[in-house]
Amino acid sequence: MVEQITSMDVDFAQWYTDVVKKAELADYSGVKGCMVIRPYGYAIWENIQHDLDARFKKLGHENVYMPMFIPESLLQKEKDHVEGFAPECAIVTIGGQNTLSERLIVRPTSETLFCEHYKNVIHSYRDLPKLYNQWCSVVRWEKTTRPFLRTSEFLWQEGHTMHETEQEAREETLQMLKVYEDFYRETLAIPAVVGRKTDKEKFAGAIETYTLEPMMHNGVALQGGTSHYFGDGFARAFDITYTARDNTIKYPHQTSWGVSTRMIGALIMTHGDDNGLILPPGVAPIQVVILPIAQHKEGVLEAAGKVRDRLSDKFRVKLDDSDQSSGWKFSQYEMKGVPVRLELGPRDIESNSCVLVSRVTREKVIVSLDNIEQAVEDMLKKVHDELYNRALENLHNRTHDAHDYDEFLKIAEEQSGFIRAMWCGDSECEDKLKDVTGGVKSRCIPFEEDHIGDTCVCCGKPAKHMVVWGRQY
Amino acid sequence: MVEQITSMDVDFAQWYTDVVKKAELADYSGVKGCMVIRPYGYAIWENIQHDLDARFKKLGHENVYMPMFIPESLLQKEKDHVEGFAPECAIVTIGGQNTLSERLIVRPTSETLFCEHYKNVIHSYRDLPKLYNQWCSVVRWEKTTRPFLRTSEFLWQEGHTMHETEQEAREETLQMLKVYEDFYRETLAIPAVVGRKTDKEKFAGAIETYTLEPMMHNGVALQGGTSHYFGDGFARAFDITYTARDNTIKYPHQTSWGVSTRMIGALIMTHGDDNGLILPPGVAPIQVVILPIAQHKEGVLEAAGKVRDRLSDKFRVKLDDSDQSSGWKFSQYEMKGVPVRLELGPRDIESNSCVLVSRVTREKVIVSLDNIEQAVEDMLKKVHDELYNRALENLHNRTHDAHDYDEFLKIAEEQSGFIRAMWCGDSECEDKLKDVTGGVKSRCIPFEEDHIGDTCVCCGKPAKHMVVWGRQY
Repeated sequence: MVEQITSMDVDFAQWYTDVVKKAELADYSGVKGCMVIRPYGYAIWENIQHDLDARFKKLGHENVYMPMFIPESLLQKEKDHVEGFAPECAIVTIGGQNTLSERLIVRPTSETLFCEHYKNVIHSYRDLPKLYNQWCSVVRWEKTTRPFLRTSEFLWQEGHTMHETEQEAREETLQMLKVYEDFYRETLAIPAVVGRKTDKEKFAGAIETYTLEPMMHNGVALQGGTSHYFGDGFARAFDITYTARDNTIKYPHQTSWGVSTRMIGALIMTHGDDNGLILPPGVAPIQVVILPIAQHKEGVLEAAGKVRDRLSDKFRVKLDDSDQSSGWKFSQYEMKGVPVRLELGPRDIESNSCVLVSRVTREKVIVSLDNIEQAVEDMLKKVHDELYNRALENLHNRTHDAHDYDEFLKIAEEQSGFIRAMWCGDSECEDKLKDVTGGVKSRCIPFEEDHIGDTCVCCGKPAKHMVVWGRQY
Repeated sequence: MVEQITSMDVDFAQWYTDVVKKAELADYSGVKGCMVIRPYGYAIWENIQHDLDARFKKLGHENVYMPMFIPESLLQKEKDHVEGFAPECAIVTIGGQNTLSERLIVRPTSETLFCEHYKNVIHSYRDLPKLYNQWCSVVRWEKTTRPFLRTSEFLWQEGHTMHETEQEAREETLQMLKVYEDFYRETLAIPAVVGRKTDKEKFAGAIETYTLEPMMHNGVALQGGTSHYFGDGFARAFDITYTARDNTIKYPHQTSWGVSTRMIGALIMTHGDDNGLILPPGVAPIQVVILPIAQHKEGVLEAAGKVRDRLSDKFRVKLDDSDQSSGWKFSQYEMKGVPVRLELGPRDIESNSCVLVSRVTREKVIVSLDNIEQAVEDMLKKVHDELYNRALENLHNRTHDAHDYDEFLKIAEEQSGFIRAMWCGDSECEDKLKDVTGGVKSRCIPFEEDHIGDTCVCCGKPAKHMVVWGRQY
């Protein structure tokens, strides 16, 4: 039998680790804080890349590749930026057996590299906008790490764009957050709170940071993706100018935006259950697993092969005709989160039908082989919708309104999930709330603010915004 | 007008640099030895990846991702391997503001990381074969660098596989070389000499290294791809064992194989001419550029748009309706190596036709719009074949047989290209020939050896093999 995993209600952290291991998503490595992404985990990442990359390109973005190293002097050009990243840098000091005259930072993010290149290729308004993206790995030195959630090296995409006007750059910033939001909903089946970060939580060097904050099954937030508007701060620091339409010399306006392999962590913790992973069809490496029943009987494997061939045109299908027991296979593909299981035995073949089983509800339906493509498509769609709705219900059920300081503390103490509460706009109140609750931080000022009070829950001064608060991974 | 570039006959190296720059393939960066791959260059790489990745997966290979760092002790486990790579390592000594207790090598190749992981996941013959590949960047510190040909960081794929038997591993090694050979011929339109490296030229740690050696337009070789058989050397060093079918404990047999962004350098130097780049249709980011003639006249842009829409289903098409002159556009897309240009003006529209121009021969054909899809497909195929045949002719014309020492030196002195000559098997003769010719090295012992003599051209002792020799990038 497939080994049991820890129940998520008993120990959520251990359950997570068990799923990562048993579903064969990642392995620990001898390199401190770095992981090996195994074939099944990497196939999820490839599906994510494929989907997102098409969305980026449809909007005119082009992929590029920048060096993985940043000379220390380059990183230091933008003051806020270097302050934000200096503490977590990995630094190359030796190259080709010689001590380097200038130390090289392994990129933690690539704003500075893009700016150095933009200086070479932006001269006129005709060169704008530049809509660049890159898929790569970045390094941010971490003390405590967990596969996919927090590792010293991780894979991501980073979009970096330059625009003629502030308005155009601000629109790009919001457009790309919307791309992420759509992708999370349509492909990952994950709902999220979206909004603007408070000044305290902004990206190093940004004027505005927008964020997408899904809630994990246990009520903890995971920063799911961010999009930044930089104004012309980097452009000034790097002396990037262009001749505008009115023949004056101007600084372009900049954005950046990124999502990473953390999304695989979000998938695990949003959708998984005590039987393992559950993958939305949009990213599942295997969407349908075909399990022949009594496969030694005449005609079973042949019929299963035919079904596989028919389905393979439209879906990612695997036929498992190995000599493992049916019970083992059921557990194995549940652990791996395959959305739909198709069972086919001698009696099914006789009646020209098969059994489809949903990974989410375990609902079984007997369907005719005549319409098997449509039946599979319907069940995949249902799985996606059920996953999304279940996550949305969890988000609603675990979001609580706090109207004053005591209520905020009581919810933070007794409940898991998000807290909605009014805030004066002062970062001291954010610090205080984080301290007294042991880690509840502002997630964002959501785009959809409700007016649930007039005063800051922390200091009692007049409120400026409704903020969503929560603990985070 | 588009600026002129240096003629390849005047200065091949400068011509190469001009093409890289003017075709907007890459930009220099402030990071010593590293380049920026610009959108047009990266789009070529994406097409290469897409094609090769499908070939790998069809043969059962799966993608994974290993850490970018190798702890120094891990790299040292296989003696020959570390000796080969130690001189060109970039080394991280600081992480998170602390000096690391163990230095981390930025991967120059990942045999050791794969082995560390294989030790965790290979236990039984049921776990074999492991057919893994990864797409990533690697770092090898270089003193003198040139975009795509030799850079301190480059992009590549590295396949790493483990097998039950020596035979199976040896077959994999040759199979993957064949995959590269097919890809070069079918997609890059580049012919090559294929064969086995001499012991002196083998990869660090390998028992056999097989190689694919295309000849550039100027007669210089470029190592186009390699495939290595390692035996069980790494497996022993890393203590990777499995329970075999006969219940004994055995070491698995290993291969690795890789190709890199050097292939873009090979494309430039094999196919390009004095008007710039010429791209084979298989990897061209734009296969057909549509240039409307007299585009201000009524109906021209509309008709051009219709043609684009029709062709876009089957080809990568760009319609350039910018306000640049036709002359500028002609030069620009020649520089970028677009295989087919489609011209469409008022008179063409009247006669329901258009003009197709081949980038290779500049042949112009007038074709009916009724069959435009087929006409474009035919010309693309023709461009591919012409490129391949032209390169093959160059390879034949610049390959010379040397029957003795004096002839070898004379050819090396007076001719460019490859030399075929018999060899005794002694690496001292390789060293001597390289020294006296100032750089002519053994490329490989080709699979198709002709018997063109009985004695080594260098020492006169009995010959063991026919070797192909040449200068290299």
